[in-house]
Amino acid sequence: MPRNIRKSTVSKYLIRRLEQIGLKHIFGIPGDYVLDFFDRLEESKLELVGCCNELNAGYAADGYARVNGVSAVSVTYGVGGFSLLNAVVGSAAERLPVIVISGAPKTGHKVETNLLHHTVGDLKLQSHIYREVTSASAVLDNPEDAPKQIDETIAICLRLRRPVYLELPMDMVDAPCKSPSPSFKVDTTIRSMPEIAGEAVNEAAARLQKAKKPVILAGIESHRLGIRDELLGLVNHSGFPFCTTMLGKSILPERHPQYRGVYCGLSAAPGIRELLDEADVILNLGALMTDMNFGVVSGSLPREKMIIANSDRVAISHHLYPSVSLADFIAGLRKKLPKGKLRKLPWPHPSANLEKKYAARKNTDITVKRFYQRMSECVDGDNIVMAGTGDALFCLANMYLQEDVEFIAQAFYLSIGYSLPATLGVKLAAPNRRPVLVIGDGALQMTAQEMSTIISRKLNPVIFIMNNRGYTIERVIRDGEYNDIPNWHYSKLPEAFGGGWGMQVRTEEELETAIARINSDPKNTAIIEVMLDQYDCSESLQTLGANLRSKAKTKTQ
Amino acid sequence: MPRNIRKSTVSKYLIRRLEQIGLKHIFGIPGDYVLDFFDRLEESKLELVGCCNELNAGYAADGYARVNGVSAVSVTYGVGGFSLLNAVVGSAAERLPVIVISGAPKTGHKVETNLLHHTVGDLKLQSHIYREVTSASAVLDNPEDAPKQIDETIAICLRLRRPVYLELPMDMVDAPCKSPSPSFKVDTTIRSMPEIAGEAVNEAAARLQKAKKPVILAGIESHRLGIRDELLGLVNHSGFPFCTTMLGKSILPERHPQYRGVYCGLSAAPGIRELLDEADVILNLGALMTDMNFGVVSGSLPREKMIIANSDRVAISHHLYPSVSLADFIAGLRKKLPKGKLRKLPWPHPSANLEKKYAARKNTDITVKRFYQRMSECVDGDNIVMAGTGDALFCLANMYLQEDVEFIAQAFYLSIGYSLPATLGVKLAAPNRRPVLVIGDGALQMTAQEMSTIISRKLNPVIFIMNNRGYTIERVIRDGEYNDIPNWHYSKLPEAFGGGWGMQVRTEEELETAIARINSDPKNTAIIEVMLDQYDCSESLQTLGANLRSKAKTKTQ
Repeated sequence: MPRNIRKSTVSKYLIRRLEQIGLKHIFGIPGDYVLDFFDRLEESKLELVGCCNELNAGYAADGYARVNGVSAVSVTYGVGGFSLLNAVVGSAAERLPVIVISGAPKTGHKVETNLLHHTVGDLKLQSHIYREVTSASAVLDNPEDAPKQIDETIAICLRLRRPVYLELPMDMVDAPCKSPSPSFKVDTTIRSMPEIAGEAVNEAAARLQKAKKPVILAGIESHRLGIRDELLGLVNHSGFPFCTTMLGKSILPERHPQYRGVYCGLSAAPGIRELLDEADVILNLGALMTDMNFGVVSGSLPREKMIIANSDRVAISHHLYPSVSLADFIAGLRKKLPKGKLRKLPWPHPSANLEKKYAARKNTDITVKRFYQRMSECVDGDNIVMAGTGDALFCLANMYLQEDVEFIAQAFYLSIGYSLPATLGVKLAAPNRRPVLVIGDGALQMTAQEMSTIISRKLNPVIFIMNNRGYTIERVIRDGEYNDIPNWHYSKLPEAFGGGWGMQVRTEEELETAIARINSDPKNTAIIEVMLDQYDCSESLQTLGANLRSKAKTKTQ
Repeated sequence: MPRNIRKSTVSKYLIRRLEQIGLKHIFGIPGDYVLDFFDRLEESKLELVGCCNELNAGYAADGYARVNGVSAVSVTYGVGGFSLLNAVVGSAAERLPVIVISGAPKTGHKVETNLLHHTVGDLKLQSHIYREVTSASAVLDNPEDAPKQIDETIAICLRLRRPVYLELPMDMVDAPCKSPSPSFKVDTTIRSMPEIAGEAVNEAAARLQKAKKPVILAGIESHRLGIRDELLGLVNHSGFPFCTTMLGKSILPERHPQYRGVYCGLSAAPGIRELLDEADVILNLGALMTDMNFGVVSGSLPREKMIIANSDRVAISHHLYPSVSLADFIAGLRKKLPKGKLRKLPWPHPSANLEKKYAARKNTDITVKRFYQRMSECVDGDNIVMAGTGDALFCLANMYLQEDVEFIAQAFYLSIGYSLPATLGVKLAAPNRRPVLVIGDGALQMTAQEMSTIISRKLNPVIFIMNNRGYTIERVIRDGEYNDIPNWHYSKLPEAFGGGWGMQVRTEEELETAIARINSDPKNTAIIEVMLDQYDCSESLQTLGANLRSKAKTKTQ
């Protein structure tokens, strides 16, 4: 037996691995089944970030993973694990590597007669459910096997870039096990089969060379795989115009002369839709084929003109090339394609849409349109722009980013309420940047308490709360009373939460006052409540609503 | 074919059934997959109660079911369904009939290629998971079968008194189906096998007649089954002393001369523990065998001296009588047992523990002990006392209820955060009573936003927030920094939420001022922030903590 056997414990082994893969923080909520593990976390170099509830902790971990590349969240059994679930499903849907660590009753409990609190009696229920929504899961009920289980589960998390689940029974936390190896590297390279990749590149290059109006659609996977530079290289080399998807916004600089905007199906801004519609070949590089990226309603593009390259495969028209990595495909195309330059397009660069320098008008109420014009000028590379699910997402997706500003939103899975806790995670992962979150009031109310965690940790996000007294995104689809929500005085939340500062703005001049204060106070959380008309929303949302309504009408006829 | 075929629609059929089983409210959150159904709800007599998020809506529905006997909650697909899950698991654990209705993508979507938002691609995932945690589930994807599926699922909900799941795809909402029958009655009687019941009653009666120190332990099931009067009859007839469990507190009047208190294992108040320990037969009538009812740590009572009657079976010592209903068992015992009277007990009635009439002391900070003494005098039959998970639960469980006050808490599953949204549900189900919630700050923060729904609906609960800056219930088990939480100014929440009123109290005199205002303002939500020392808690919790700590110490030795 190797000498290092039984020199560590299961929790120390796990914590060491979390440190080795680059975590500095772990999100969590205490609860009796996980307190032992939390004690070990407090003794470690990892910082345990307490959140107000488990769902919020999961959203924060998801945000952290978007910046840091991987994250972890730890909760108690049952009440904790089940409350967290939706965040983990969201991370699975949007391909974020999040390690879920749940405490659990001690292994011996499984034979006792009485029901245990936080459970329904079936002590396999939670791991069973997590097995359905994660890419790997393990119950660490045996210290001999735990090190291997931990290593394998974390490796799958990093390789597949999806959530995984580890269940740590109370009596296993300090159970002796072998020491972790001093280094832990997971090879996350996605490998191609050379002959398949070669054929895929040849076919794609031939189609692209024949194409008169090719367009590149750049997606989030190039960011997650760390190959943005390679993607940019191909864009520059080919000279093709490009769009991004909503989820992929900001992965390439928007100032780039070949950039035209964000494509999101029928709700895309005019010009973008036409660009894609008239394209003869659309080269999708890393965009997930979701209904949000490709139009909630019938905005799908014809497969016949598409080349779709995802992380580990390529589809051209209706046929598939398996085992082709996105990295190899991009590199192959760059070699095959001749150097090109941007063809003349009937649609100008989005920077041309900017009005002349924004100037606040006197005695003028703020509108959605003017607010985002102002935002477009405000934000810079020191910010991370975050969008709440709702109209803020459509508006920010279409807002031109003049500098290289990172944009983060749960733009596909679309949990309303995701973005505020995610801002906490993003800020902790990017301590030198200031997140600017724009969020609707309906979304804010879902997870509002996490503002207090941001405030109490003295973090400095700027949070614009768009007060239109309800779910405007639902109103444009179906206008019912159920879309109205209680009207909070959002600018008073900092007082109740004990820190930061708040301001309500209704006019363009008041917005200027708020922005001046934001800039003069770079260290505190700023909460700006923006008063809007109930039906004021983006053109994208109006288009989407009109389409959904007309579809509903057709259906009932 | 019967004439009434195709005169209704799936949603109308479902809504009619919900009305017929006695619902006046349904809790929910809008989302695109459920908007059609919400439109139908708005047209119906049911009142759709919007909550701030899905988990809170689920807790509210659970609270409503505790008073009304059944409830329903409706959410959108994916993000909604997964966010709701923990509330439903809690309802399953504590046996509450809650009907979950989830919207879903239209049935045709299942063959499209693009991923749908709010999903991970597998459109069976949500129904699959809900099948694991509910007693019946159905996907209403066929208007021919839907009426039968609806009837059967609701019948199981009512009969088993557990949550069920109905999934309603968007295109099925208005699909024509047969009309609902004008009346819908579900026979919820639990039937016994007479010969088994007879034998069980005989054996139990013989044991009880021989017993010198029998004790009755009264549990929640007699309340859920609507047989409290029968239980009270047996208690009166037998003359046995009785306790309740935490979950069963208040099902029998505490003024009853045979009552001695709440038994909760090692954390039970002195006297109660001894009463059970020295008993030679313990007659458990409807108490769930949970670790919270019977002591989190080794407080289990020896099976040899127990007669355990649950809703549909009886266990005596180590043998089981299946198919014996609690109602029949109670009736049988009442017939068999001779009339008895309360024997002399070394422990007085809990009313004797009351100090002389509480009088506020000058310049004296409030303590936990004195606060609950005051509460014991304050509350009356017009109130419903609700306990947040945490020390408030232990304190209120042991607080003597002088009048017939209903007590509600999630005393077994113990989701921290449950009680505030549950208060909303309880109040709507019992409009003429005023809930008094005592909740810790940690629990409050989990679901705080639902206070705004209570306020905006102009409901009048009294909410005492016990501010000890963290999870004191965890602190007594393991004192770590992770138990500290942001210190909100809770009494300012009404200002931020736009209604009700708040007050911070630190001294006994300030508490009197607050109580005077509560009584003089019976129509508004009152938020009283009670400032406490960080480690001030109930004796029960101290005992529990000491036991858990010493156990942990033993474990590591």
